[in-house]
Amino acid sequence: MLSAIATVRKIKHTGWLLMALLWVIPLRAQEPVDTLAVRLIREEGLERSQVMATMFWLTDVYGPRLTGSPLLDSAMAWAARRLESWGLANVHREPWGPFGRGWTLHHVRAEVTAPVAFPVLAYPKAWSPDIDGPVTAEVVRFDVEDTSAFAAYRGKLRGKIVLLEPPRELREPFEPLARRRDAEDLLALANAARPEGGGRRYSAEVLRQLELAQRRLQFLYEEQPLAILDRGYRGDYGTVFVDAADVPAAPGTPWYERPGPWEPGVRVIPQFTVAVEHYNRIYRLLERGFRVEMTLDLDVSFNDDDPYEYNLIAELPGTDPRIGDEVVMLGAHFDSWHAGTGATDNAAGSAVMMEAMRILKAVYDWLGRGPRRTIRLALWTGEEQGLLGSRAYVDQHFAELRGWGQPPGRLKPEHEKFSVYFNLDNGGGKIRGVYLQGNEAVAPIFRAWLAPFHDLGAATLSLRNTGGTDHLSFDAVGLPGFQFIQDHLAYGTRTHHSNMDVFDHVIEDDLKQAATIIAAFAYHAAERDERIPRKPLPMPEGTY
Amino acid sequence: MLSAIATVRKIKHTGWLLMALLWVIPLRAQEPVDTLAVRLIREEGLERSQVMATMFWLTDVYGPRLTGSPLLDSAMAWAARRLESWGLANVHREPWGPFGRGWTLHHVRAEVTAPVAFPVLAYPKAWSPDIDGPVTAEVVRFDVEDTSAFAAYRGKLRGKIVLLEPPRELREPFEPLARRRDAEDLLALANAARPEGGGRRYSAEVLRQLELAQRRLQFLYEEQPLAILDRGYRGDYGTVFVDAADVPAAPGTPWYERPGPWEPGVRVIPQFTVAVEHYNRIYRLLERGFRVEMTLDLDVSFNDDDPYEYNLIAELPGTDPRIGDEVVMLGAHFDSWHAGTGATDNAAGSAVMMEAMRILKAVYDWLGRGPRRTIRLALWTGEEQGLLGSRAYVDQHFAELRGWGQPPGRLKPEHEKFSVYFNLDNGGGKIRGVYLQGNEAVAPIFRAWLAPFHDLGAATLSLRNTGGTDHLSFDAVGLPGFQFIQDHLAYGTRTHHSNMDVFDHVIEDDLKQAATIIAAFAYHAAERDERIPRKPLPMPEGTY
Repeated sequence: MLSAIATVRKIKHTGWLLMALLWVIPLRAQEPVDTLAVRLIREEGLERSQVMATMFWLTDVYGPRLTGSPLLDSAMAWAARRLESWGLANVHREPWGPFGRGWTLHHVRAEVTAPVAFPVLAYPKAWSPDIDGPVTAEVVRFDVEDTSAFAAYRGKLRGKIVLLEPPRELREPFEPLARRRDAEDLLALANAARPEGGGRRYSAEVLRQLELAQRRLQFLYEEQPLAILDRGYRGDYGTVFVDAADVPAAPGTPWYERPGPWEPGVRVIPQFTVAVEHYNRIYRLLERGFRVEMTLDLDVSFNDDDPYEYNLIAELPGTDPRIGDEVVMLGAHFDSWHAGTGATDNAAGSAVMMEAMRILKAVYDWLGRGPRRTIRLALWTGEEQGLLGSRAYVDQHFAELRGWGQPPGRLKPEHEKFSVYFNLDNGGGKIRGVYLQGNEAVAPIFRAWLAPFHDLGAATLSLRNTGGTDHLSFDAVGLPGFQFIQDHLAYGTRTHHSNMDVFDHVIEDDLKQAATIIAAFAYHAAERDERIPRKPLPMPEGTY
Repeated sequence: MLSAIATVRKIKHTGWLLMALLWVIPLRAQEPVDTLAVRLIREEGLERSQVMATMFWLTDVYGPRLTGSPLLDSAMAWAARRLESWGLANVHREPWGPFGRGWTLHHVRAEVTAPVAFPVLAYPKAWSPDIDGPVTAEVVRFDVEDTSAFAAYRGKLRGKIVLLEPPRELREPFEPLARRRDAEDLLALANAARPEGGGRRYSAEVLRQLELAQRRLQFLYEEQPLAILDRGYRGDYGTVFVDAADVPAAPGTPWYERPGPWEPGVRVIPQFTVAVEHYNRIYRLLERGFRVEMTLDLDVSFNDDDPYEYNLIAELPGTDPRIGDEVVMLGAHFDSWHAGTGATDNAAGSAVMMEAMRILKAVYDWLGRGPRRTIRLALWTGEEQGLLGSRAYVDQHFAELRGWGQPPGRLKPEHEKFSVYFNLDNGGGKIRGVYLQGNEAVAPIFRAWLAPFHDLGAATLSLRNTGGTDHLSFDAVGLPGFQFIQDHLAYGTRTHHSNMDVFDHVIEDDLKQAATIIAAFAYHAAERDERIPRKPLPMPEGTY
């Protein structure tokens, strides 16, 4: 069979008009699908993929990529060079911030030394300061179910190593830790109702527990233990989920206004997340009356030479005189947590989006033209600290952001020029469809665009909202922003924010599939006569 | 409902004869089952279990229990005290050996420092000597597919850190890591044919690979690298399987005659097993041309004050004038590897066998008498180094052992007084039946004894041999020795010899079930008129 590229070679000689006639073959009456472009994209994405080479550099060489850290800067410099080498235009960094301090882990040591010696698998929570050690100290429990229990601990924790929480009971893995979405799962998504407005509601008990957690932290910060240990709420068998050190907030402070340990001048007590089995063992020894001692050492560095952070931008410039300044965006966050190398969160999304741009460049080169609209890649930073990079970008370009859950302020001229944003940040699993974020008008469009990819497992549209990543920054100002439905793999159980979020746990075929489908979505969005339809603005409170 | 113990209280007043008549109610025509004893055993084992308390001490406090190590001695001293506190008789240690040196890990540090810094999850292989560090050295590959490749490495490895093997490709855990035996699995065991004689046969290719591995080791010992790293053949996501350091053997040496790193005077090069993800990352960096450096530090201690090791023995003495000196044995190995605490291998078996003895003592106390035959517990050491403790015991008590695969020499008087040995050492999974080890005559007996435990999932007899643990020492001299069929749980995939073989990964209900069933087996074997039938002696070559 003639390869698609050979076909294009032939067709090229017949001129542009004929090509346009041949290529745009509507599969649905309403929404055209460019089947030849899809063939070219599939060939480039599935047969000449470079996504795993990109993954290698982003993880093995330049991982982890904690926001603010020098390694993130190196990773971004590498990505910029790579994007330029692929021929993308306007490759540049756009600053946001000020963010605060960077942090790099150099050495951690954690060992129980009494009553029996054993090495402890533990990771410092990000922005924990040095422990000038090795220091050996007593480990103590801090079992408080309400604030009245604090009194018993007053004056007794200074210089100690404190266990923040009770043990966590484990269950053996009789269920698979990795899974793909099955028909039942996808059908539930397909049948989901249009999401109602309204933010998260917490029960009184949950709110009490959250408030108690803050009071516990505040008490510990007053008492000045040597270090605070927790065991996380998930992970076992050597997989440890680790994020940032906690800093107490004043009563009633909403989560998005709490001080971050990266902020200048914020005092941080060293904190470690410990493998649950080791944590439980220490706790049991204490319960039985043993005096437990640990040796800790922690060598980190902070950097605050440049308090600003950067999103990385690259483009395939639009070439249509009428709509060339309109923008289709692809994005993924480039920053990661620090215990692994951020392979599935979110080197995978970054590598896939870079790869989608590479595929598009190759395909447009074969077509001998550029896209009608501008296709713009954004690799965000500060996502893990609250979508900071993408929110700043939206604020700078599209509409004034006025805080979480608030309607946007003044719209900017670029708001009108914007078509759609596609995001990938739910791990390394292949694409199974799209969350429509309540935008019913896009359903027929995306359904048509998915049609050529049913054989790759991507077919499902869900009206459901999905959250937790950078498309929300666009959705919040009435711009179409979408996150794909992805297979779970072991994201929730093993890799998301864990020490084992590393290169070996991404699946090449899944990344290739995702890059291919996203390239086709971007292609169709760029070539389409109209921009992508929007939800009404201002949105009902609570939907953004 | 009247509890079984209350029933016994009443029955006690009616005298021995009536009790005997009431209790021994044959469920099968051939083999009697003592249903009241079973009720008492079930109540004691399932409702008043102490097995998890025993597990706590053997793992959290006295784990790991590497053969030769001081912590093993402490664990054994604790177990002896506990067995005595339960009222068992003749609690004593029996020496075997000389074994060699003990080894204890105090501190390990492994970090990649260039081209990018990251902590490496790595464990020293047992009996690795100190690295007087921290020392930073270059990491190099050692890719040899045959001995002709050695020349290229000659003189280049001294002081380096050598990667022993290629990366291992990982698969995501789409299958459950823990599982129970299903009907299909049990049916295959039930339908298995009587095992044929004949030892393991290796293909020429496997033999070539084994021989090459020895030549590689020999070459590395000549070249004197700083350390040798491997990544094991199983484990991922933070679970690392670790056993002993390797020492090269002369060409053609069978495995059971290879020098152990514990032997006095044997030189050992420091060896580490590294989490596969970290190993693979290092390898990939080297493949791409990066110079990789690691910092290693290792602080261990050797002890050779007493080159002898000990099995721990405890008894419920036989009381029948005719057969009281005949012996029914329960056993499990007490030693473990060192990266975890040896919870499923084999604190579980040890705790279950101790618990079975406790149950039996309690039940015989309720019955107001002792067992007819002596019931003897043995907790073996040196199992992980080649069934050393149990083989020595068999050699000392029952028959001269003359090397692996050889028929036994002179039989000793105790050989005639021996009834049966039951072993537990396939992890923490509950009992599903018994491997009959080709002994068809025991099938009707064990079938009857399992009948009261079908509701607990134990019903299957398999003629199949199972190997790898201490019942083989008995089987090798024609004595009935059996290992139970157990549920797998996560033994093969996560715990067996791993850093995560720890307390949290045993399941209380499984251990209770196993202790209860084994107590009942021991009870019936002790009370039975005849000893357990034996396979003919001498056995056909290769069956032992």
